[in-house]
Amino acid sequence: MTHTTHVTATTAITTRTVEYPADGLTMVGHLALPAGTDRRPAVLIGPEGPGLNDFQRRRADALAELGYVALAFDINGGRWFTDPQEMLAHTTPLLADPDRMRGIGHAALDVLLAEPRTDPDRIAGIGYGTGGAIVLELGRAGVDLRAIGTVNALLTGRPGEAARIRCPVWAGVGSEDPIMPPAQRDAFAAEMQAAGVDWRLVVYGGALHAFHHPRIDHEQTVLPGIGPHPLHAQRAWQDIVGLLAECVPVT
Amino acid sequence: MTHTTHVTATTAITTRTVEYPADGLTMVGHLALPAGTDRRPAVLIGPEGPGLNDFQRRRADALAELGYVALAFDINGGRWFTDPQEMLAHTTPLLADPDRMRGIGHAALDVLLAEPRTDPDRIAGIGYGTGGAIVLELGRAGVDLRAIGTVNALLTGRPGEAARIRCPVWAGVGSEDPIMPPAQRDAFAAEMQAAGVDWRLVVYGGALHAFHHPRIDHEQTVLPGIGPHPLHAQRAWQDIVGLLAECVPVT
Repeated sequence: MTHTTHVTATTAITTRTVEYPADGLTMVGHLALPAGTDRRPAVLIGPEGPGLNDFQRRRADALAELGYVALAFDINGGRWFTDPQEMLAHTTPLLADPDRMRGIGHAALDVLLAEPRTDPDRIAGIGYGTGGAIVLELGRAGVDLRAIGTVNALLTGRPGEAARIRCPVWAGVGSEDPIMPPAQRDAFAAEMQAAGVDWRLVVYGGALHAFHHPRIDHEQTVLPGIGPHPLHAQRAWQDIVGLLAECVPVT
Repeated sequence: MTHTTHVTATTAITTRTVEYPADGLTMVGHLALPAGTDRRPAVLIGPEGPGLNDFQRRRADALAELGYVALAFDINGGRWFTDPQEMLAHTTPLLADPDRMRGIGHAALDVLLAEPRTDPDRIAGIGYGTGGAIVLELGRAGVDLRAIGTVNALLTGRPGEAARIRCPVWAGVGSEDPIMPPAQRDAFAAEMQAAGVDWRLVVYGGALHAFHHPRIDHEQTVLPGIGPHPLHAQRAWQDIVGLLAECVPVT
């Protein structure tokens, strides 16, 4: 693992860019540490298919301000795809390959575990879209996460493997998301229920896919069915923060 | 309106039993007031079909401790049905008659509005089962509630009337509730979405009908499909408190 360190001090937190290998690429994650020197519960943050951007890096910072060690991890080798076709060409085969997803998740987890501030017994995973599917796959691989929270990531896994998930699962989705339609919600719920998982699903009325993400301002093509919903985005974030408070409270 | 007052002082709140007429009965509600003398946001709390019991009275007390004026209202004229058949004989025709439900809701609202501590511009309604259906009907009647939160109450209304709901609607339901099955969830969601309501639906995995209610200890017959889920019950309460914090914050 190579660490390229850029230390940025804000009011109380410290952030660091971390390079590490995964999926045949050099990933470029964003690690945020709360003030202090003690061990803290830690959170993996999985980004959307286009990749890790400042929006998810700021989520790591926000969690560090709440007292968590937080790693916004990378899935695309430092790239952020502005072309939806290029994004899909990368994520479609990835999402069909649980082992590749797990490899990306495990590499990110190793970065967290290498951080002395991380309490290895109190790690949660949250993620959005592709990054959410990756943290779910860590659960299905039997990784001892203490909570899994995902938005727009209702992908089912290989048969039977969800039974390895031993922590609460919280999932959010937009009611009008054409990429996660009602049949997919039902399939995800059925998988969790059959596996005996402690699960919840929040359907945000009127929200599209990627509703949690602010509108993308530059001249990027946006796929149909994608759009922001700032009010539900704020609620979904509060729901995630509540999940962490329940399962990995900062003491 | 007849007020029969029993004042009970706890650490900081004041509670009062309130009798008032509705639905041809004398209702016996439980009003809880926070410490102080100023106006506060106020909350209607609708009970389950069996009626108002101490469990929902304590919800009013808990909300008063958070700073709200809270009325746990009555739907059965002071009775709490221990016989499920007697309960169904009362609630089944009631749930089929929106005007009767609105009458019960309006009478409770009048009690809240008659309380000088109530800020009439900041009233929310929450409810469980039948009581949830009643607060939804107040919304469909065009009452200016600032939030509606219901658990196990996904009853649709008369066509088009949901468009009168102008506040956020939060609804929770158990995934295994046979009384509110997936088709009913879908119908409720479709009604809210078609009406342009700001809505959310939380599905609590593995929970049955009335999952929010503690197990009933005495020798009451319990209908099939009903049972407690303490963990989700606590989450649903936190979700309701969060809805109130969003829509009618105590300032």
